[in-house]
Amino acid sequence: MPNQAVADVVARLKSGGQPADLQGWRSQFDAVAGGQPMPDDARFQPIILGGVPAERVTVAAAEEPGVVMFFHGGGYMFGSSLAYRALTAILAAATRAPLLAINYRLAPEHPFPAAVEDTTAAYRAILESGTPASRIGFAGDSAGGGLVIATMLSARDAGLPMPAAGYGISPWLDLSCEGKSFTELAAVDQLMTADGARGCAAAYLQGSDARHPWASPVHADFTGLPPLMLQVGSTEMFLDDSTRAARTAALAGVHVEMQVWPGMPHVWHLWPSILPEAVAALAAGGRFLRERLTPSLTQAM
Amino acid sequence: MPNQAVADVVARLKSGGQPADLQGWRSQFDAVAGGQPMPDDARFQPIILGGVPAERVTVAAAEEPGVVMFFHGGGYMFGSSLAYRALTAILAAATRAPLLAINYRLAPEHPFPAAVEDTTAAYRAILESGTPASRIGFAGDSAGGGLVIATMLSARDAGLPMPAAGYGISPWLDLSCEGKSFTELAAVDQLMTADGARGCAAAYLQGSDARHPWASPVHADFTGLPPLMLQVGSTEMFLDDSTRAARTAALAGVHVEMQVWPGMPHVWHLWPSILPEAVAALAAGGRFLRERLTPSLTQAM
Repeated sequence: MPNQAVADVVARLKSGGQPADLQGWRSQFDAVAGGQPMPDDARFQPIILGGVPAERVTVAAAEEPGVVMFFHGGGYMFGSSLAYRALTAILAAATRAPLLAINYRLAPEHPFPAAVEDTTAAYRAILESGTPASRIGFAGDSAGGGLVIATMLSARDAGLPMPAAGYGISPWLDLSCEGKSFTELAAVDQLMTADGARGCAAAYLQGSDARHPWASPVHADFTGLPPLMLQVGSTEMFLDDSTRAARTAALAGVHVEMQVWPGMPHVWHLWPSILPEAVAALAAGGRFLRERLTPSLTQAM
Repeated sequence: MPNQAVADVVARLKSGGQPADLQGWRSQFDAVAGGQPMPDDARFQPIILGGVPAERVTVAAAEEPGVVMFFHGGGYMFGSSLAYRALTAILAAATRAPLLAINYRLAPEHPFPAAVEDTTAAYRAILESGTPASRIGFAGDSAGGGLVIATMLSARDAGLPMPAAGYGISPWLDLSCEGKSFTELAAVDQLMTADGARGCAAAYLQGSDARHPWASPVHADFTGLPPLMLQVGSTEMFLDDSTRAARTAALAGVHVEMQVWPGMPHVWHLWPSILPEAVAALAAGGRFLRERLTPSLTQAM
């Protein structure tokens, strides 16, 4: 069934011509996605967490049950807290908690595992500032959805406590691109291409093993991870990143929830000004995080 | 991690000795599960729907956005609205709608497709009484979780409109028992055995094809089905009934949500008097149904 709003999103992303270089592409993505209207009460403040630049996103309704670390997507090569302001403001409102959008280093200038090192350093800094792990949630989309789980694995390896929960939006969890949907849905995916994904993986890995758990968490052991929520569109090449990760989580005894939204394109959440499904999905993900940052809510359910 | 409450549930189910015949097993299940305390405000009234006996379950808080049809489990051989009163009362409260627990005919006296014929006849009667399909939700556990989807497929084949949503609790969606978890988790499943499941399948099918879509919806085409929620325990042999059905739903463009709850036994929801996770899971499932029986709630999310 054709969805004009989805077509508008795709057209918006493809607008702006062909920038001459990587920096041009990055700026264009920041301008197109970051140029959406956003809630009047949203505030964005630059901060540094463990040496890593970040942006603190708050809305007037925040009740501060904790904080949400947000890892943006963009194939490890693009994206920034600026591009994601419309998304992060709505997620902060849904979670009713401040959000910390982490501007980790990007590839190819900074290959694997630079991104994981940065998100882990920022997490460590938040813990050391006195916020207990039980009051910290992770969220991220696409490559940043991979970082949600990769950062948990890295933190586990470093002996750090687990955050309260993780929320992956169209998460990219397999840089080896082995999911059946990667080929089966290539023709129906509205946004992504196999060449595009493989190009990003190569630029980020630069020879590192694509099956390293921090690069492709779908191949990892999830033992000890906190509750996870994964959302993915039914026509995404990345569908089976989520279906496989859900099973991996289940077999490791991890509470996992997966939602498949029909016909939505990769990271539809990025377009709350166009797609009502973006707002609805962020509401569900934000509620999942909020209930786990505020255990009394879960007990009262 | 040992969970004493789960051990108590298993002991409760295995209490009562070895009845001499099938009717003895049925009565024992009704007595053990149906003997739990239940909410003071719950009311149970016998009714007939399309010639099928049923029980109408209401609680004082009901706002009546619609009705929920409930299909009990028990391998198509056991179970009744009586055994499920603790569960149905809590689900009615969570949905804030009256619940109609359908006492479909059981095997081996009434083989496949008697159960599907009965649930479909009851659904048709509710439609003919003037309740629109958009105000009807389906829910069911184990074999009844299979009936949630089988009844949708049967209704679709008969040209009836789809209900608003379906909620499967540890659904048994594959009578051919082909899920990987059926063997991989056989040793850790606290309640079920392969012989037990295969025995029930044989008693119900009596030679019919186990891969018939009404018997094993996991092999069906889900095109046109309404939003589905599936909940399953991480140590259940039936885990992959849900993981496969979630993928089948996704590829058919059906909105699907799957939740995996760590360490919970098959249909833990049946024990709200022992397991807090039963109440929490029914709250989540009830909320899913309620939001779809009351579209303005979803739009306001």
